[in-house]
Amino acid sequence: MTIPKAALIALVLTAAAPAPPAQTPAPAPSEIVAAAPASDWVTIDPKDLLVMDLAPDAKARPRRVVIQLMPPPFSAGWIGNIRKLAAAHWYDGTSINRVQDNYVVQWGDATEKKVLPEGLAVVPESEYASSLQINPNSANLIAFKRRMVKQMRALRAAHPEVLANLPPEVNPSMIDPYALMTFLDGGWPVAGDMSAIWPVHCYGMVGVGRNLSPDTGSGAELYTVIGHAPRHLDRNVALVGRVIEGIENLSSLPRGTEALGFYKTAEERVPILSVQIASDIPTDKAFPRYEYMNTESATFAKYADARANRRDPFFIKPAGGADICNIPVPVRRKQG
Amino acid sequence: MTIPKAALIALVLTAAAPAPPAQTPAPAPSEIVAAAPASDWVTIDPKDLLVMDLAPDAKARPRRVVIQLMPPPFSAGWIGNIRKLAAAHWYDGTSINRVQDNYVVQWGDATEKKVLPEGLAVVPESEYASSLQINPNSANLIAFKRRMVKQMRALRAAHPEVLANLPPEVNPSMIDPYALMTFLDGGWPVAGDMSAIWPVHCYGMVGVGRNLSPDTGSGAELYTVIGHAPRHLDRNVALVGRVIEGIENLSSLPRGTEALGFYKTAEERVPILSVQIASDIPTDKAFPRYEYMNTESATFAKYADARANRRDPFFIKPAGGADICNIPVPVRRKQG
Repeated sequence: MTIPKAALIALVLTAAAPAPPAQTPAPAPSEIVAAAPASDWVTIDPKDLLVMDLAPDAKARPRRVVIQLMPPPFSAGWIGNIRKLAAAHWYDGTSINRVQDNYVVQWGDATEKKVLPEGLAVVPESEYASSLQINPNSANLIAFKRRMVKQMRALRAAHPEVLANLPPEVNPSMIDPYALMTFLDGGWPVAGDMSAIWPVHCYGMVGVGRNLSPDTGSGAELYTVIGHAPRHLDRNVALVGRVIEGIENLSSLPRGTEALGFYKTAEERVPILSVQIASDIPTDKAFPRYEYMNTESATFAKYADARANRRDPFFIKPAGGADICNIPVPVRRKQG
Repeated sequence: MTIPKAALIALVLTAAAPAPPAQTPAPAPSEIVAAAPASDWVTIDPKDLLVMDLAPDAKARPRRVVIQLMPPPFSAGWIGNIRKLAAAHWYDGTSINRVQDNYVVQWGDATEKKVLPEGLAVVPESEYASSLQINPNSANLIAFKRRMVKQMRALRAAHPEVLANLPPEVNPSMIDPYALMTFLDGGWPVAGDMSAIWPVHCYGMVGVGRNLSPDTGSGAELYTVIGHAPRHLDRNVALVGRVIEGIENLSSLPRGTEALGFYKTAEERVPILSVQIASDIPTDKAFPRYEYMNTESATFAKYADARANRRDPFFIKPAGGADICNIPVPVRRKQG
């Protein structure tokens, strides 16, 4: 059977043409992740996992929270302190003291009198960002962001006077009101400008409590985000990691009723039994391995695109974009 | 005493110079809100409040959730259904069935067999957005957004060819990866393009559960956002209101362990005692009045600016911007 050329063109152009019967629905982001080859996953070194065990809940169920620490160069001074505090068992016996709805859960020494181990670093505020240069051609810019940056650079090249003359408060990233660029770098959500990059406050990120500037916190007081990304904290507080398992043991705690969500009474505080680095857990106590998706893999690009453009059956209108905190890096227990 | 001119200049330039003793620190957003005159607040009509009472918690404490319904033209068909369902006491005896961490809490009839009242509207998908025109000069564009839009229009006027030639996937708002513009309109977070506006999925927003398209849901199944704004749901599901009090009674519930956070057993479900419109609550049962901040007021502009540029003592680096969901409209019990 011969198909007239005009009909062929019509077939190609008609978006509303009926789908071929064998067509499978577009996969959801979770399905893309599930189908990733083993080579797209990166095993997390147990030396980079902080394991916090809370007292069991009212039904005697254990409550464990697993935190992946950020790699250098981010927040290296504070992370060094946290390793020392964990090694000294300093956190053991402290408690969850603050649960503020749509904001943070915070833990540490409620008495503020527990003596810190010697030799902790006093980290300067300059360490809230890293002076590491961004390479705008880096393969780790996720797919749609890469397209945006490319277009932006073409626009700049063609019309340098346009962007040069915009007032400084205009953010030319076309993406994010908080930073010139945001992207996934080495498996972590970060923001950057032409001189520095810094980690950003997405759901589940773990940061260092501090007093007023110039204090930067030691790492003895920590918090995690349990609400809409409080990006105004970026570059104002140190971020040191993210919760990769068990965040529900923090996010579903009763909210504190004092100012800023602090618990009113000692009874409300949740005791922390221990905080230890996973590699220090005796090998006879089985501890799972974890892996995160390589953000430079083809699967991740596909996943990020699907997060920005949901085409799986429930959706009728793909958004056409996503903010950095709405593209969480997949992390799971190691398979196979 | 005479100060040499060179020393004076040094004083002016030195950021670390001691602050004049009488200088007050910049107010926090909450302090700006607390100082607002009564005229900057709008009383919420009790006819627009949906009051959901859950069964008391394990410590016999009552759990009430107060939801403000959106004004027309948004989602009017679904909101009409919800008013009918509440008037018929249809929700009473249903339950919270799903709690998915960093996503939603969902409630309705777990049996899916409860007969709906007659006369509910079947609302078309076209109602996910309103064809209401945006007036780019509208006073309700919040301060910094207004500046952005103005600059964008100047850029367009000066160089129409630049933006006209950008591929369609470039979002020229310079603000938000999800929409051409986002702003606060009549006290609600919305997004828009040149032909329509639609409400957006911020923390605490309430939407209508549905099955696969073309189903749009009746309003019998509802959910609220308890995590980072899932903006990919915008224009894919109907939004009908927001939780203005008691969200902690939903956000701190145990997470469901089945797929999508559904509870596994009937025992885990939280019974809903009643859902009623506040104006139907007998006057002898005291019910508070609520008010929200007028988003066109001078106080709101100051508040939005402070959310985007924190200058209160804790902060050292103002962000220079904020996404729409990080500027929640202040709502409180009516004062005085």
